[in-house]
Amino acid sequence: MDLTEIRRAVDSELEEFLRCKLRAAAGHRLPAEAPETLHRFLFAGGKRLRPLLCVVGWHAAAKAGDRMHPGVYRAAAALEMFHAFALVHDDIMDRSDTRRGQPTVHRTLAARHGGGRGRADRAHLGVSAAILVGDLALCWSDELLHTAGLPAERLLAVLPVIDSMRSEVMYGQYLDLLASGKPAGDLETPLEVIRYKTAKYTVERPLHVGAVLADADPRVLAACTDFAMPLGEAFQLRDDLLGVFGDSARTGKSHLDDLREGKHTVLLALAVQRADSRQRETLDVLVGDPGLTDDDARSVREILVATGARDRVEEMIRSRRDHARRALDHAPFSADAVAALRGIADSATRRAA
Amino acid sequence: MDLTEIRRAVDSELEEFLRCKLRAAAGHRLPAEAPETLHRFLFAGGKRLRPLLCVVGWHAAAKAGDRMHPGVYRAAAALEMFHAFALVHDDIMDRSDTRRGQPTVHRTLAARHGGGRGRADRAHLGVSAAILVGDLALCWSDELLHTAGLPAERLLAVLPVIDSMRSEVMYGQYLDLLASGKPAGDLETPLEVIRYKTAKYTVERPLHVGAVLADADPRVLAACTDFAMPLGEAFQLRDDLLGVFGDSARTGKSHLDDLREGKHTVLLALAVQRADSRQRETLDVLVGDPGLTDDDARSVREILVATGARDRVEEMIRSRRDHARRALDHAPFSADAVAALRGIADSATRRAA
Repeated sequence: MDLTEIRRAVDSELEEFLRCKLRAAAGHRLPAEAPETLHRFLFAGGKRLRPLLCVVGWHAAAKAGDRMHPGVYRAAAALEMFHAFALVHDDIMDRSDTRRGQPTVHRTLAARHGGGRGRADRAHLGVSAAILVGDLALCWSDELLHTAGLPAERLLAVLPVIDSMRSEVMYGQYLDLLASGKPAGDLETPLEVIRYKTAKYTVERPLHVGAVLADADPRVLAACTDFAMPLGEAFQLRDDLLGVFGDSARTGKSHLDDLREGKHTVLLALAVQRADSRQRETLDVLVGDPGLTDDDARSVREILVATGARDRVEEMIRSRRDHARRALDHAPFSADAVAALRGIADSATRRAA
Repeated sequence: MDLTEIRRAVDSELEEFLRCKLRAAAGHRLPAEAPETLHRFLFAGGKRLRPLLCVVGWHAAAKAGDRMHPGVYRAAAALEMFHAFALVHDDIMDRSDTRRGQPTVHRTLAARHGGGRGRADRAHLGVSAAILVGDLALCWSDELLHTAGLPAERLLAVLPVIDSMRSEVMYGQYLDLLASGKPAGDLETPLEVIRYKTAKYTVERPLHVGAVLADADPRVLAACTDFAMPLGEAFQLRDDLLGVFGDSARTGKSHLDDLREGKHTVLLALAVQRADSRQRETLDVLVGDPGLTDDDARSVREILVATGARDRVEEMIRSRRDHARRALDHAPFSADAVAALRGIADSATRRAA
């Protein structure tokens, strides 16, 4: 299985779909800005992890001799379009300025249309247009799936999986939003957020979508879950570390955003649990302050290291990755799918971007 | 055809669906606030116009002796759930404080979670949570449709209609957003907005959804369009009048919102075209000012009357309603559907709320 080739096939579906949308917008004198913005966003970067897992999920479940329907690539592309929706809306909620090394969509659109308006009105217009661009991406994700030309009974079988995935990630984001603000030592909430917002959304459900498209039996779906949940948790724990310790030139995101928003991560919860009273006071003052500076971020990072929180998260990542790899030992998947999943498990948990 | 009975059947689908969502959220320790908020919003009011048109569309296309599949009510309820999504997001974009006589969703959630935060942070949290509640409503609208138990080939036939409807209303809203701000005399843009954001979304597509569920032939779909487009335009022109001249105790919305947001309506465009230089100056100063007062609104209303813009819009409503009624004379619809559509055409264009 050639992951680069899968990525290329998924990208060409996205490219072709958006080209049609651009042509249709021009033909009806509708704002081409929406498909243009999504095109720029989708091709500024992205690991295409969810589409990859979807296609690998198909291979995992396929029987010897099955030939993959080409619509599976388009269904995989639908997951990437959905992810564009999720990121555009998340960036509004997190007040992020940068994503994939570019200004976020709400910032870009504020700058484009803000001429002659005050600062607050400009920001509001940017947020409004970005809400709509996200809404369109969500609907176009459905349209990609519906127009994949899949056999009717496969399309109908996959719709409930997509429905579950979407509710799960939105509930995860809702939990995350309500938990953000001031640092707290509760570990259960951020682990719950991780399960819904990342493990199920990023790993389990994309595998399920692909597997259901190959008409997987329940045993295969359960094995997908056994692999996906620990890997997804490890993936998000790595993301939380990168959000604070990462090189923003490589992650494409500011390493101040999570701290400014007061994101209630496992990393921070562990630091709060282990902090002495002076460290705790520093965390309380700095984390969740929208005006947090680079120097402040350095002080927080020092506490994350000194309390051992960072090391503990690295251990949690290792143990979850090992758990995921062991799940593959007994999974009823094709051999090439197992090999691909081992590779993905490594790169998803060892990455620097 | 008993419209009250249709409304009741649709409401009971919404009620039952949200009850399941509440139970599921409680079972998984997920925030019940999302389904609760949607429940409160949906049952605070609403004309259920789109679900009604969907069910009438089914009757319009049905052959003598056809029995309606009960899933048609659930598909109709899906349109109402989608509309909840659209209103929650629109209210954020329009910065509206009131809807259906209650605080808008973003205001309600800001008040609920804002404790201990500054004004701007509170507002941001309310907007963020409302974006998510809207996103969930959009996805749940799909889920309602997918779980309606419709025959597979009917569900598959209706998906592209829904896809078109959603892109159309979002493009309409995008056009509307970019056109808002300062008053202008251009009539083409607000008429284009009306076609996408209201005529197609509120009337044409709901009829099409119902008609396709009854396996309508192309002639029936074309006749739906002939009726829907003028009626939808008339409906929105009435809405624009109510937005400025309506009794907010009856409309449930503030009659300042459209003027504050500088909504580029046909009404306002006509006034700008006909204003003398003093009137034009007043419109330029007041319309689009977020701080516009009740007295300011009165001055604007006086100009809308004095220039004849209001009367002209009333004429436009009348001529479009007549056009829609004439379209029914030759439509290949069942007799009871024609009678129901005549009634809906009257109430949608003569209403005070």
